[in-house]
Amino acid sequence: MKIIKYPLKTSWDSLLARPVLDYSHGESRVREILFQVKNRGDEALREYSLRFDGYEKAYFSVEAEEFETANALVSDELKSAIAQAAANIRAFHESQREQTIRVETTPGVSCWRKSVPITQVGLYIPGGTAPLFSTLLMLAIPAQLAGCRDIVICTPPGKDGNIHPAILYTADYLGIHQIFKIGGAQAIGALAYGTETIPRVSKIFGPGNQYVTLAKQIVSQQGTAIDMPAGPSEVAVVADKTANPTFIAADLLSQAEHGTDSQVILVTSCEPLLEVIRDEIELQLQQLPRKEIAREALHHSRMVLLENDEKVLEMINEYAPEHLILSVENPEVWAEKVENAGSVFLGHFTPESAGDYASGTNHTLPTNGFARSYSGVSLDSFVRKITFQQISPEGLLNLGTTVEVMAEAEELIAHKRAVSVRLEFIKGLNHG
Amino acid sequence: MKIIKYPLKTSWDSLLARPVLDYSHGESRVREILFQVKNRGDEALREYSLRFDGYEKAYFSVEAEEFETANALVSDELKSAIAQAAANIRAFHESQREQTIRVETTPGVSCWRKSVPITQVGLYIPGGTAPLFSTLLMLAIPAQLAGCRDIVICTPPGKDGNIHPAILYTADYLGIHQIFKIGGAQAIGALAYGTETIPRVSKIFGPGNQYVTLAKQIVSQQGTAIDMPAGPSEVAVVADKTANPTFIAADLLSQAEHGTDSQVILVTSCEPLLEVIRDEIELQLQQLPRKEIAREALHHSRMVLLENDEKVLEMINEYAPEHLILSVENPEVWAEKVENAGSVFLGHFTPESAGDYASGTNHTLPTNGFARSYSGVSLDSFVRKITFQQISPEGLLNLGTTVEVMAEAEELIAHKRAVSVRLEFIKGLNHG
Repeated sequence: MKIIKYPLKTSWDSLLARPVLDYSHGESRVREILFQVKNRGDEALREYSLRFDGYEKAYFSVEAEEFETANALVSDELKSAIAQAAANIRAFHESQREQTIRVETTPGVSCWRKSVPITQVGLYIPGGTAPLFSTLLMLAIPAQLAGCRDIVICTPPGKDGNIHPAILYTADYLGIHQIFKIGGAQAIGALAYGTETIPRVSKIFGPGNQYVTLAKQIVSQQGTAIDMPAGPSEVAVVADKTANPTFIAADLLSQAEHGTDSQVILVTSCEPLLEVIRDEIELQLQQLPRKEIAREALHHSRMVLLENDEKVLEMINEYAPEHLILSVENPEVWAEKVENAGSVFLGHFTPESAGDYASGTNHTLPTNGFARSYSGVSLDSFVRKITFQQISPEGLLNLGTTVEVMAEAEELIAHKRAVSVRLEFIKGLNHG
Repeated sequence: MKIIKYPLKTSWDSLLARPVLDYSHGESRVREILFQVKNRGDEALREYSLRFDGYEKAYFSVEAEEFETANALVSDELKSAIAQAAANIRAFHESQREQTIRVETTPGVSCWRKSVPITQVGLYIPGGTAPLFSTLLMLAIPAQLAGCRDIVICTPPGKDGNIHPAILYTADYLGIHQIFKIGGAQAIGALAYGTETIPRVSKIFGPGNQYVTLAKQIVSQQGTAIDMPAGPSEVAVVADKTANPTFIAADLLSQAEHGTDSQVILVTSCEPLLEVIRDEIELQLQQLPRKEIAREALHHSRMVLLENDEKVLEMINEYAPEHLILSVENPEVWAEKVENAGSVFLGHFTPESAGDYASGTNHTLPTNGFARSYSGVSLDSFVRKITFQQISPEGLLNLGTTVEVMAEAEELIAHKRAVSVRLEFIKGLNHG
């Protein structure tokens, strides 16, 4: 990791730059896949599954006995862990439920807002080397709490046609059985357009490789909503003299092992920490199976020394990290001043991995600086908040003139008349 | 308006189809404008302002005396109307404020979520024939309630260099003075990238013509968030035998006058209403200054007669209208069953125009079927909901094994170690 001491403000921009993502070279390929899936449905899915996943079978649904097999393969230890994580995720997301509040804005004018679940949602769970059953928990639990009627899962099978048992077990544990063996851009197409086998959904969630990301981006321009724009995972750690270098090094490495394009940043005003943490990283790196990935991610990562806490905070807010770890003496004081971040971890005993898996917060978070304008996935992501209003004749007498005057000023006379014809009627009644 | 009686379910899709929007022919032009604004800033803005708006001056800021002039030009009647509307919008959006709730998901594991305002937001207010000061109210009031630090308005000037007094008065009334005389795709570019004069923002709100829409779409792919995908405005009206045909006709026309691409749909199971409403529309149409626009919009609009209330409800939920008016005897019962809509108007005395202007609900709503997955603009649109967590040593003892087991199952060993190094430390303390 590169150490940068007291950088000038003018250099912050380049210092905090993310690895640039260029998906454009895959675009024509992804558009072709989407086009074929839209027009030829399951037939196209079968062709792409064979070509990209080496999956030869003619069907995509998971059968009842596959869930049973998975159940037998998952250890009791992992089952208990999934149960605790699921309970915590459920408890935290349940607290995000919004009560309907009626407001009488003017006497006789009643307005309210109600959360209504998105009827059909699609969850994409990547396969490949690591089975991301944690992502399934993070997406399916709020979808269930929201009350989504159809929760459709797509995940790529291995060449043997199997889905990793931890993913199947988790789906079964949650009571979700609409799970299809299909991955890549073709899975996104299937969810966006629907095929003979796979139901069409209104919103697609979940991470994926560059083709999945690109496919999500394209279908989002065509009317299917997506969770949020994607980018490589990242963490920023703020440390002061109370920080434990062993903990910090482990936190930085846990982000770095995600992928070679992950980014980790340490910001501090405590100079002595820098060398110690760097040595500690080198030491711990040796013990990691994914050390090559982590090492490459560390190449474009930085430790930044700044003059004081104010500058540290300023840099963090400018960077807008997906994850922010506050390894400081008074994390509550710092947390109050955080303007831009996806999720914040306070104090020395709150590693990011707790939130990645089991504390209860969601791990689907805005990367790439999107934390400036986007929130992470929450119960909100699975509902629409529909507004309602009801106006009594008395209410329209109280509000009508205002509407008429404003509509006339905007030169929308039919808007005005929709009120006027009612006011005339009401006044007729009152005098009748 | 075309009357369609008892259509087969198989024909619903084509019956409910929206006018197709093809923005692609403007795309290269809009990309060029954005490129120039990004690279040449104010200089490019000046060139485009001259070319597209006929605006020749070298500056874009609104000066103090222009607000004074506007204040003198706006009638007291309109000022009162704006005051009542603003108070109602404020009251309703204030009720959307979320309290921070701490949840202890496991003993010693505390999670919470906090709404933090988006620091910089940009509001685009169209100019042209009608001065949409109502849109300014709908966007600026929740931005202010949310606590956004920089609220930047762009709106195109007339050839004389002036902005409509109602817009300037509304901005001044709300205490917002960062208002720039610039419109079109170049305004969206200025907000997305920043120029010498115009500050860069993180999220852009507001309606506009096809170039504005396209520019918003493009910058949203580059990292600037936008309020929602755009489409022509639309209303669906459900009517039963208690409905007043004069009211219904006025409601349908108030939507139709928006633009030739507006869509209005009436759905009912009460056959006698159809002819009466059609005659009433013809009658009222004559009285409208924008009758040519409304007539064209009515050409691609429909009245649909269905067998019963269940089918009516089914069709409405399939259509997912931006606005839904329930002109029925028991609107509360119907409202409970609405799954897909942007905003719902209950009963005979609740015209859509009340919500367009002054009842308190937001009028920036999902069109084009996006109500299936998107909500309208609300206080939520101007905040990020950042999650926080703090774990005590005891909490990590309670949660740590779960994280370790799950991380190991996902083959992310550095994630596991971030917990393990802390657990070792805590156990050392406890035994030390």
